[in-house]
This record gives sequence, C-alpha cells and structure tokens, in this order.
Amino acid sequence: MSTTLNDCRALDVGDPLRSLRDHFVLPDGVIYLDGNSLGVLPKTAAARVAEVINREWGQQLIRAWNSAGWFHLPQRLGDKIAPLVGAVAGEVVVTDSTSVNLYKVLSAALAIAAEDAPGKKTVVSERSNFPTDLYIAEGLCRERGYQLLLVEPDGILPALNGDAAVLMLTHVNYRTGAQHDMAALTAAAHAAGCLAVWDLAHSAGAVPVDLNDASADFAVGCGYKYLNGGPGAPAFVWVNPRHADRFQQPLSGWWGHAAPFEFTPGYQPAPGITRYLCGTQPILSLAALECGLDVFGAAQALGGMAALRAKSLALTDLFIRLVEERCTGHGLGLVTPRDHAQRGSQVCLSRSSGPHAPPLGGSLPPEGAVTALGRPGDGESGAYAIVQALIARGVIGDFRAGDGAKHSDILRFGFTPLYLGFEDVWHAVEHLKQVLETAEWQRPEFNQKHAVT
Amino acid sequence: MSTTLNDCRALDVGDPLRSLRDHFVLPDGVIYLDGNSLGVLPKTAAARVAEVINREWGQQLIRAWNSAGWFHLPQRLGDKIAPLVGAVAGEVVVTDSTSVNLYKVLSAALAIAAEDAPGKKTVVSERSNFPTDLYIAEGLCRERGYQLLLVEPDGILPALNGDAAVLMLTHVNYRTGAQHDMAALTAAAHAAGCLAVWDLAHSAGAVPVDLNDASADFAVGCGYKYLNGGPGAPAFVWVNPRHADRFQQPLSGWWGHAAPFEFTPGYQPAPGITRYLCGTQPILSLAALECGLDVFGAAQALGGMAALRAKSLALTDLFIRLVEERCTGHGLGLVTPRDHAQRGSQVCLSRSSGPHAPPLGGSLPPEGAVTALGRPGDGESGAYAIVQALIARGVIGDFRAGDGAKHSDILRFGFTPLYLGFEDVWHAVEHLKQVLETAEWQRPEFNQKHAVT
Repeated sequence: MSTTLNDCRALDVGDPLRSLRDHFVLPDGVIYLDGNSLGVLPKTAAARVAEVINREWGQQLIRAWNSAGWFHLPQRLGDKIAPLVGAVAGEVVVTDSTSVNLYKVLSAALAIAAEDAPGKKTVVSERSNFPTDLYIAEGLCRERGYQLLLVEPDGILPALNGDAAVLMLTHVNYRTGAQHDMAALTAAAHAAGCLAVWDLAHSAGAVPVDLNDASADFAVGCGYKYLNGGPGAPAFVWVNPRHADRFQQPLSGWWGHAAPFEFTPGYQPAPGITRYLCGTQPILSLAALECGLDVFGAAQALGGMAALRAKSLALTDLFIRLVEERCTGHGLGLVTPRDHAQRGSQVCLSRSSGPHAPPLGGSLPPEGAVTALGRPGDGESGAYAIVQALIARGVIGDFRAGDGAKHSDILRFGFTPLYLGFEDVWHAVEHLKQVLETAEWQRPEFNQKHAVT
Repeated sequence: MSTTLNDCRALDVGDPLRSLRDHFVLPDGVIYLDGNSLGVLPKTAAARVAEVINREWGQQLIRAWNSAGWFHLPQRLGDKIAPLVGAVAGEVVVTDSTSVNLYKVLSAALAIAAEDAPGKKTVVSERSNFPTDLYIAEGLCRERGYQLLLVEPDGILPALNGDAAVLMLTHVNYRTGAQHDMAALTAAAHAAGCLAVWDLAHSAGAVPVDLNDASADFAVGCGYKYLNGGPGAPAFVWVNPRHADRFQQPLSGWWGHAAPFEFTPGYQPAPGITRYLCGTQPILSLAALECGLDVFGAAQALGGMAALRAKSLALTDLFIRLVEERCTGHGLGLVTPRDHAQRGSQVCLSRSSGPHAPPLGGSLPPEGAVTALGRPGDGESGAYAIVQALIARGVIGDFRAGDGAKHSDILRFGFTPLYLGFEDVWHAVEHLKQVLETAEWQRPEFNQKHAVT
C-alpha cells in the first residue's frame, strides 16, 4: 500500500525530536533540503551576535578578550563539538576554514609518515572526494614529493598496500551521500602502516562519529552545514592525542604559541590541540556557531546523536520510498546507498536525459547501476533545471554536476533531523512529482546557469 | 607657555574631521587609545549584521551566496581597502587571518626567490617585528631551507647584502610605533636582488601607504585594528600584479580555484589575487568589516588619508607635548620617534623603575636613549600597573612587555584620527598624571597579571 500524507503526519506526531525544530527560524513557504550546504538559523543567534556587537565589542572593546571570554572561544566551541564526533574535551578546536585545517593536519600527517615510514610516498584519496580536499592534497604532495593517488571507492583497500603513507577521505561523500566505514578503513590503513585523515564536513552533527573508538589519526570538519553555525562559520580540527604533541603544523601563528602574550621572537608550540590554531579568529562568526552547537546540547536530553541518526534514516528512507512510489517514469536513479550503514544524511538522485530514460518500474534502480543512468555533463540531463524549478517552488536542494564520464549529474537533497519533519518530505516529493509531470523544469528561466554553491 | 584644556578644545573646533566620530559607538566614560589593537564599533555594524543574519541567512539561506553577494565579499571588501594602501581595485582580497595570509605571501615570495635568485638563502626581518610574523617565517624558513636573520632597525640595510632573498617587515612597529620608509627599503631590497614583503597591520587606515608607488612585492594587513572591522575580522592580502599570476600559494583551496563550482578534481588557480583565497569565509565577520571600511568612504570627502594623517600627527604631537609638560619626574621615556616620517599613529612610553628614575627635565629623553631607561622584564617597571590603573579610569591603552634586555616595558597608546579628539588627549594625560602622582598604580589590584592582548 502506498504511503499517504496522513502516514507522514502520523510520523511527525510520534517524533520524539519534533520540538527541536522550534530552535530554528524556518522561512515560510520553504522546505529546506540544503542543510548539508548551509544550515538554518538558530533562533538565539541574532540576539547573541547583537550582544557580542553591542555589549562586548561596542562597550567592553579590547577588554572583552578577557571579560567576554573571546580568547578561549576556539577551545570552548571545540569542547561542544567533541561529543558529536567521539572526541573528549580538550581534543578539538574551532578555527579557520576546513581547507586551511586540512592543510594543517595533512602536513602533520606527512611529517609523521616521513619519520615513521620514510619509504612510503603516496597519499590515497577518493576521486570524488570534495575537490578542495584534493586541491590541498595536490599542493602538499607536490611540495613534499608525494604522489596523490585518486581511486574509486572499491579501489581504496587495494591502494593501501604498497607505499601508501596517508589515507585521506571524506566520511560522507558530498555528491553521493555514501558513508565510509571509518573504523574499518582506519583499521585497514593502520594495518598497512598508513595514517588516516578524515574530513567530517558532511558527518558532524548528521551521523554518529567516534574518532577515538576508530583510532583515527586526524580529522577536520565544517561549522556551517549540519552544525548550523552560519555562512562561512569557522571549521574544526581534531588530532588524536597520540599525535597532538608530536609535530607542529606549518601555520605556526601566535594563537598556537605556548605563551602568545609573552611576545617572544621564537615559536614554541602550545601543548595539545591548541597548537593547531594560527591567527586571531572571527569572533562574530564564532558566536553564531556557538548558538548552533547549543541546540545539540538540547538534543542530548532527547537521545542525542543516536536519536538524530534514527530520525535521519527514517527521513531519507521515506524520501526514497515516496520518490519510488510517486515519481517513476522520469528517468530518476538512486545514487545514495540503500544500506543504512553506508548512507549519510542526504539522498542524491541522478537523472538520465529525457528521450533516453529507461523504463523504470516501481522502484529506483539499485545504487550499483545508477551511475550509468545519467547523461552526465552534457547539460541535457535536466537535473540542474529540475533543481531550479524546485527552488522556485520553495523546495531547496541543490545540483551537483557530473564529470561527463563515470559520474552523472545529481539532484542532492539533505535531510537535517533537527528541523525537518516527515510531512516536509511528503510535500517535497509532491513538488518534485509536479515539476516532472508538468515539464515545468523545461522553462527557459530554469536552464540559465549562474554561480551555485 | 604650557598647553591648556582650552587649547585642546579649540583644536577640536577647528578639526575638519570632527564629524567622523559620529560614525562610531564610543562608550561613555572611556577614552579609547587602543584602536591599534581592536577598533571601535561603527554605528551601522549592528544593523547590517542583523540584516545578514535575519534576512540573508535566515530567509534566503543558501540562495544568499548569490542573491546577497556573499560570494564576492572577499573581492568587494578588497576593493574598498585598495585605495587605503595604494593599490587598485582587483589587487586586494579580504580573507583568513593576517598570519595565514603572511604564510601565503611568504611562501610565494620564497618560490620566486628560489627561481630568480637560487643562491640566496636568507629571510631578513626585524627582531622586534610582531611575533606571529616571525613564527610564520621561522616555520617556512626551516621547511624551505632558509635562514631567518633577525636584526635591529639599523641592521636592516647591511643585512640586504649577501644572500638575502626576502625582506619581511611590519611597516609600523607594534611595540614602538616607529614607521619604516617603505619606498626606500623596498628600493634597497630590490637593488640587492631581494623581494620586499610588508605587514600593514598597524598602517592600513592609520598612515598613508602606497604599495604600487613603492613597487612592493607582497603585503598583508589586519581588519580589526584601524579598519574597525570587529574582533578577529578577516585580514587582507595584496600581491603586486607582476607576481600575481606567477605562483600559486600553498593553501590551494577551492575559493582560489579558477572555477570552484565545476568541482573538478585538479587544482587550477584563478587568475590574479583570487588565487590567494582558500576556503569559505566567515560572512558575518566580513559584513561587519564592510561597515568599518565604509567610514573611510565618508572620510574621502573630507580629505581622505592625507587629512587623517595630518590629524593623527597632531594628536600624537599633542600627547607627547602634554606628557612632557605635565608628567615629568616619573621615569617616563619616549619610545616612538619624534620625526613625523618615522612615526605611526601611536605613542609608546617606557618607564624606568621608581627609585632609578632619571632626573628628567621638561622634555622626554630622545628616542635614541630611551631603550636604556626602562628596567625591562623584571616586572618592576610599573608600566603594566600604570596601564591597568588607567584602564580602571576608562583610559584604555595597553602594555607590552620588554624582553629583559634591549627593549623596555612599554605603555602603548594608539590614536585613531577617525574618532579621537584633542580634548580626549588632554584628559588621557590628566589621568596619567594623576595615576603617577598619587601612586594609585601601586595598588595590588593593578599588579595582578592576566591574559592581555
């Protein structure tokens, strides 16, 4: 029997996390399925940032570094992120951008590898890793004399043999929503004498992560996606305590110094994670991020990440089921794995070009088959225009281009369990159905590309 | 004849820039002489940031990257800084911290030097340069096989001979307020086959700077001091167009890519200064900085940097004169040069220990003699406690410790011509006089050290 709107409403009534959406501003007429790109606004953020501006900056001025606690914000916010990623207080700092932090930890990882495994000269990553991670790795590899080896997911384990020094992966893939098994891959890397660096941009606050349990070596993550820290919110960095004091990272600025206000001419790194700081941090943006993190404190009383994960899977399961039931015959394929263990908190659909659409039955093709479905990169898949048509209806997801070869164009939908409901999923699919059935997406205004993020 | 309060008031009446202070929130009961550490709050910032939070982030969400112009903020703000530093639009971006930006430009400078002057293996800087600059240089020099040579100001020119590859200086010294001759030193560096990297942290918005006229090679600067961008506001970076396309900097993140939203796995640097971007920037903090920059737009109609410089010198001249007239016999020395061409926008005083105070006459000793005056680093100079006593009275300057050798403890007072008046200077000196004459600074609460910035 097909799922109904009333079924979805019943799920909302039974949702133990339903009250959490009251912590956020959710614009009227919008179903927001892009929290994996920019999280929504926590209700407390505007007042908190106003307080920082008017009372702290405006009135206390320079004194606020001490009186308002600005100086320790990177550590204080890091302590609030720690329980979301299986770290403990004192192991995480919030600072800089994800790209800059990746540069720091990959540099440190290469320094360790050069000492512990000097013959190994390869950094292994996934070809469809988020590009900035690959760009950072490309530069560091060239500088340090390493090879950057990019493989498909099934090529990761084989690549660890040989001269792999560092395995650098994003835990949940930004394009496909596929989640790696962090513990198994880290163990495999260690067994091969290789370090494991994890990017948690699409994981922190979205899926359970246990860095210490996995014995990971380094991790970075993003403040503005599932942590709801606001546009360009600073990122975070974690280093396994076994490495934290061993190397200094190359961005050896004063905030990472053991005694920054002694103004000594020589660099002496602070103990522990503090040495992964560099320069002065943007306090207004840190203050907003703290409001996002505090919602996770409220979520803790309702079951924390385990409850959020259960709801996330229920939301993405529902979305897949509704698309299968209601949007067949339009060339959609499922890119995100059905297996819960392999799924992040988003669902990605591919789309083949209209005339070549395969005759789909009542279910989306399995994930193994879908990359052949799209007519990638030729601009004719319609995926871009469908996303634009949905946005015009207030259903905000995003488009990610294929590569013209293995990877098809993608319609990407993020499901943030903190603020999305099951009825939202129903309406999102209803809009998708209408956009497809009416060919609304073929209107010229939905086919004009401009910068997208 | 001694200067009077009425003289100061008359200067305010005749001040053509007087109206500019109306652009700022100035707390009651405070005379703020620390704008060289954290600038004051522009009146427009709270409303602008609230708009970014509530309307752009809250309502437009991910769409705001395009609709609200977030994506081009680094360039838009850079274009507003350009005229303050003798650059042209398109040559400056606002991003990251000063330390991170210094890492980028020093890396690029070393890459150029390695190609153009491969035998030269020394980076020259000033021993009393701001420490984070030295820390960044220390790390890069170690990594690239360079020597970091730290000299006193009079040792800079001699050090350019031999194997100097890069001269890296802060234009206005954070401790002394002494200003280097950028054009002359850059010319000397170039004549010796050496590149010139300038840190404008205490210059941009405070003193005239003409990077292109000086033919400087690289520059970085700070957003939260004289530019009034708010706590930890992002910094800026300028690269001489002759170098901009030549090298990529090592923090090769997606925002510096030629086509970041094509998500290609290989890095292709953007043309020009955009390649000095790395990751996503903190939009709330950028928005506040733009409010600070816009005041310089208003100042342009009143004479711009030339008028601001004239007022800055009048303020610092008045402060020196009033201290000489009213605060003698307390062991104060003048650290900042009297010569206008060598002075930034701050005045630094040293202080010798009480019982050893030299019998000063009606004028402070000349700058050449003062470093011997303090009893540096022994915690007994009283400089720290005097600054604390002044802060308790609402006169906010700051303390910078000596090094126990050549450099004495310092009382540092910044004079921001945008919002300080001449009567403010009178009252600041009156408070200093009272603190010294009553020995108020010897009270225990002013001698307990805590973190200061």
